[in-house]
Amino acid sequence: MTKEPVVAILGATGAVGQEFIRLIEERKFPYSQLKLLASHRSAGKKLMVNGKEYTVEEAKPESFDGVDIGLFAGGSVSKELGPEAAKRGCVVIDNSSTFRMDPNVPLVVPEVNPEDIALHKGIIANPNCSTIIMLMALKPIHDLSPIKRIIVSTYQAVSGAGKEGLDELREETEAFLAGRDMEPKILPSKSLPKHYPIAFNLIPQIDKFVEDDYTKEEMKMVNETHKMLHDDSIAITATTVRVPVFRSHAESIYVETADELTVDAVRKAIDAFPGAQVQDDPAAMEYPMPLFTSEKYDCYVGRIRKDLYNPKAVNLWVSGDQIRKGAALNALQIAEYMLDHDMIH
Amino acid sequence: MTKEPVVAILGATGAVGQEFIRLIEERKFPYSQLKLLASHRSAGKKLMVNGKEYTVEEAKPESFDGVDIGLFAGGSVSKELGPEAAKRGCVVIDNSSTFRMDPNVPLVVPEVNPEDIALHKGIIANPNCSTIIMLMALKPIHDLSPIKRIIVSTYQAVSGAGKEGLDELREETEAFLAGRDMEPKILPSKSLPKHYPIAFNLIPQIDKFVEDDYTKEEMKMVNETHKMLHDDSIAITATTVRVPVFRSHAESIYVETADELTVDAVRKAIDAFPGAQVQDDPAAMEYPMPLFTSEKYDCYVGRIRKDLYNPKAVNLWVSGDQIRKGAALNALQIAEYMLDHDMIH
Repeated sequence: MTKEPVVAILGATGAVGQEFIRLIEERKFPYSQLKLLASHRSAGKKLMVNGKEYTVEEAKPESFDGVDIGLFAGGSVSKELGPEAAKRGCVVIDNSSTFRMDPNVPLVVPEVNPEDIALHKGIIANPNCSTIIMLMALKPIHDLSPIKRIIVSTYQAVSGAGKEGLDELREETEAFLAGRDMEPKILPSKSLPKHYPIAFNLIPQIDKFVEDDYTKEEMKMVNETHKMLHDDSIAITATTVRVPVFRSHAESIYVETADELTVDAVRKAIDAFPGAQVQDDPAAMEYPMPLFTSEKYDCYVGRIRKDLYNPKAVNLWVSGDQIRKGAALNALQIAEYMLDHDMIH
Repeated sequence: MTKEPVVAILGATGAVGQEFIRLIEERKFPYSQLKLLASHRSAGKKLMVNGKEYTVEEAKPESFDGVDIGLFAGGSVSKELGPEAAKRGCVVIDNSSTFRMDPNVPLVVPEVNPEDIALHKGIIANPNCSTIIMLMALKPIHDLSPIKRIIVSTYQAVSGAGKEGLDELREETEAFLAGRDMEPKILPSKSLPKHYPIAFNLIPQIDKFVEDDYTKEEMKMVNETHKMLHDDSIAITATTVRVPVFRSHAESIYVETADELTVDAVRKAIDAFPGAQVQDDPAAMEYPMPLFTSEKYDCYVGRIRKDLYNPKAVNLWVSGDQIRKGAALNALQIAEYMLDHDMIH
């Protein structure tokens, strides 16, 4: 497009919405007009963007009239407003899980499968945070030799449960140190009937249980990976675990490929991949840690080593910011890609 | 033996030593005489055991004259004093890694390989905490069908670094919440040249790096499992990670067996295994969490599910107290087994 786009952020007051604003400022994302939208509850709040004050408006179907790009932070509101916005000519980039497996909706990490963006019909889905961060480490390997098997155990930050998850970890930690009872209300998931403390604890459940005693989060890592790598034959096993960390996820990954790969080839491929960085020097005690990958754009990969028993397998450890590459940054990068390739009209 | 044994605790003032004392009281472990030993630095400290005050003595070779059972809490002192105590007729149960792979020293979890105890020549080694907790979940499966492959990612509590590790997590957490700088001095390991914060962080290094960019902790899980299951052909891959949890470890385990097993058969076998408990009801959101397995004797196993791609593989999640079953309790259980079977003379 010749003019700069009209942009709307839906869910502007939440953790991902706030990150959209920070990233738009940091990355000088272009817009001719900006609308901040949220639920009725948050309407009327004032927020500063690039030095200008905006009033948050209640999101309605008509809010998207004349909007070119809708950045949807996530949640159940996407289901109704996604199609409404798309109908009005807005390109929706949606962070919720609603449309991810819809065959008419591309599911995209711009570094992994940018070619799928062009297939959109008004809505593009942003993948699950754990899937994004895993694929930032695995796509360069898949490009060297097709991946056959993934066994992944996650170490997921509380930011995956939004601002309420971040607040809960802090409040519980303060209570524990002061000898007071912890009062969990959010994790593992607000809508579930039971809640458990996360401070000084681990919760091996993210999202609800679905088929075969796997959680929805675990199945997202299977199904979304198949969709983005266009290969349903990859055998994937995930165990997803919440840990007392604020905003960067980490994952321990075992990956088998069709061919034997050297550690050196894997390191070079990851380092050459945009958005991924190798941080891997055992002698210097260098490896990714979530406290230090927070607030970064890139995903960091370390502990890269050959499996001791399977010559076609490699083990590695990846960490990336859940709110940034795992959510807001990836969505914004889709929008940036579309602007760069003149795909917004 | 007809009389009750003379017992010495070496390292009585540390985290494991303190746990020996608590467990001796709780489990009414019999003794005719008790000696508390430690380094020169801690000698002279007074400690209460079963209502009686003891003065900690500096440990020397002669300290073990007339001692029947030596409970060694761990550390480098074992190397010198283990053989000295054994030479004096003391049965040493040693929690350090010094003798674990010595072919003349049995490495024992009493529920897993009690038959090896009888082979001792004065020293019996207590396995690494992560290995013990893993095998408490896997031995019942191995008894159903031989294990061929293990891929394990650990979530290890700071108590593995002793009292200093526990203090460090608390102090760093307080500093972080108060907005002060964290000052790591212990983790990942006191003797290493760099230290990283563990509060609100994950450290994917436990112990030093050894061959092939694996850590010593990771290789312990491989080698000790081979020794205790008497099968060096089992393919084991471990990724060991420190997490901000005080005293219970957790592990995410993928396990392949020679035969196809049902989840029901695995559940029943684990539940029938002494010292292991199934805690696994997804519908009721029941699964092991380290905050709740702390201070317990048993290891808890949940998230038991068939692998979606390999019919001969099962995934599970185990958690157990690092200081208890992972260290002091297991060592004391070896001593209890020997007393019950009249193996102390």
